[in-house]
Amino acid sequence: MSYLKKNHEILISASKNRRRNRRENRIVDFLEKRFAGRSASIIKGVGDDAAVIRQQGAREDWVVTTDMLLEDVDFQKAWLTAGQLGHKSLAVNLSDLAAMGARPRFHIVSLGIPATIPDKWIVQFYQGLAKLASAHKTLLIGGDLSRSTNGIQVTITALGETWHRQAIYRSGGSAGDVLYVTGTLGKAAAGLELLRKEQTKGATASQKEALKAHKTPNPRCDVGLWLLQNHYASCMMDLSDGISTDLPRLCSSSNVGAEIYPGALPIFSASKSWKLDPLNLALNGGEDFELLFAVPRNVAAKFAEAYPKRFPRVTRIGILTSSKGIVLREASGKPARHLANGGFDHFN
Amino acid sequence: MSYLKKNHEILISASKNRRRNRRENRIVDFLEKRFAGRSASIIKGVGDDAAVIRQQGAREDWVVTTDMLLEDVDFQKAWLTAGQLGHKSLAVNLSDLAAMGARPRFHIVSLGIPATIPDKWIVQFYQGLAKLASAHKTLLIGGDLSRSTNGIQVTITALGETWHRQAIYRSGGSAGDVLYVTGTLGKAAAGLELLRKEQTKGATASQKEALKAHKTPNPRCDVGLWLLQNHYASCMMDLSDGISTDLPRLCSSSNVGAEIYPGALPIFSASKSWKLDPLNLALNGGEDFELLFAVPRNVAAKFAEAYPKRFPRVTRIGILTSSKGIVLREASGKPARHLANGGFDHFN
Repeated sequence: MSYLKKNHEILISASKNRRRNRRENRIVDFLEKRFAGRSASIIKGVGDDAAVIRQQGAREDWVVTTDMLLEDVDFQKAWLTAGQLGHKSLAVNLSDLAAMGARPRFHIVSLGIPATIPDKWIVQFYQGLAKLASAHKTLLIGGDLSRSTNGIQVTITALGETWHRQAIYRSGGSAGDVLYVTGTLGKAAAGLELLRKEQTKGATASQKEALKAHKTPNPRCDVGLWLLQNHYASCMMDLSDGISTDLPRLCSSSNVGAEIYPGALPIFSASKSWKLDPLNLALNGGEDFELLFAVPRNVAAKFAEAYPKRFPRVTRIGILTSSKGIVLREASGKPARHLANGGFDHFN
Repeated sequence: MSYLKKNHEILISASKNRRRNRRENRIVDFLEKRFAGRSASIIKGVGDDAAVIRQQGAREDWVVTTDMLLEDVDFQKAWLTAGQLGHKSLAVNLSDLAAMGARPRFHIVSLGIPATIPDKWIVQFYQGLAKLASAHKTLLIGGDLSRSTNGIQVTITALGETWHRQAIYRSGGSAGDVLYVTGTLGKAAAGLELLRKEQTKGATASQKEALKAHKTPNPRCDVGLWLLQNHYASCMMDLSDGISTDLPRLCSSSNVGAEIYPGALPIFSASKSWKLDPLNLALNGGEDFELLFAVPRNVAAKFAEAYPKRFPRVTRIGILTSSKGIVLREASGKPARHLANGGFDHFN
């Protein structure tokens, strides 16, 4: 969950999207200040990947998140099967729980569908959703089903449980902490570009991989929980909008800046042969749903050694700094550049 | 929450809506059987107004519900101010909590809006929502804000808490229990008819009252909690779709039938002078968001006496019966009629 939205169009029209982002940022800042609930039972309210609420006498806190997927904004019906949409709708919510180190427990599904959608589509939507739910042991407890005159809309609320009443927030990072990401960056965005070129099946193994990353992302709940249980991560979030948009959010919450090494980023280099720019996609492409987190410097070596081989690879991509702003620092001695929200400018 | 939807159009095209209802009923029955989660921690899953989940060691259970309002299906933008839509979106969710006897605690708001909607609209939406939230002591803990290319969509998830781990379900009724409703029936539907005739302001006090009932319904949380705390209600639900649709659901859950006395229904008789049929609206009109509940016969007199004067009026409208189906029984000795889902047929 965030009050800020996945920006598919960033690759097509960065300036338009930056405008939208700024508008949304501004509205959300205002809404948060003005309307966010405050109470001893709200451990974390709006402004992180999920909210954390405490109930009197309970051993664990609840972690609650919601995400909406709208046809023509977040997906094209022709690009996803019903089952893939079901999977993806739940996955984006579980990714928010993963980003807090929470364990998925329950979910609620609201589905608005045009009258022309056949029953079979609805059942397949729920099948795709149920398969991912089962893998993550989260249970369907209810929802809403409505006809819609305006395309397909899915809104899911996911409830997770803390482990020992702990959660990892965006705000816990300090200057000097080492930045990591899981998996590969820009792979889902490369998949989206293939869909835009109507290459919906993929001709090669890499193309199929990119399409899969876009259509059926895997929330990193196991990694998030492991990081929490082993006290490695000082701050964490999931990458829904790309590093250039998400890292500034993490830094802002932690009141730090960051330096990242573009050469070290786990880019999806196969996309180069499709005339895409893997680094641009890694920085600015959305929907990777990988985890971005920081580890205090003094435990970074221990963390790197202990990180389980069964998990997706983890890559050290930079550090948090006391000076604000995000700087891209090339290893080769090229001049450093500032990373702007939704893109990057030359350092001046 | 229910997997079944408010049917505004019932007044215009009952047959079309009955068809939609049957389709939705069928899909939802299937989804419930196939996909509903089962676990000791799920006290009540899909199939009631809200779900009830239990956390180890917690003193109270959580009651969770979600409802979606879609432009052009659930509302027309021209008919509601932003603040009224904010109020109504939360109200329909709180009404589900009221129907369980739960106390509202937290809510999460997902809002999809076209890019043409000004900031002011968004802020007024949240203001209207916040005012009702404050009256019911529920706190905003998060949400999602997205641009939409397909009209305005609101999905709210509300979390409530039980009182002494108790909730009132649809399923607790027995033959012989006395049926009651709060407030007036068919008032919101009369308001909707005025809007359809573009009488958006209302010329008389009654018209203004009807418009208010439609635009800014008052969830009956105080009545629901009082009924629970005093152990009066054997079963309960909120009236979102009208008695002719909702009472069969209550009866089906409780495995009973019902007899109702049309002459006793608290109809909104002012609507007669606007060339509307108050009884038809009371039976078939949606969105009253009043409570429908049953009280065991042996405590009905005590209940009627104890019912607080500060609450909206309560009316005895019939009884639950062991024979299935809903029968309309006139006091005057006219022949009884069967009430069909979404309308009524002559008894045969």
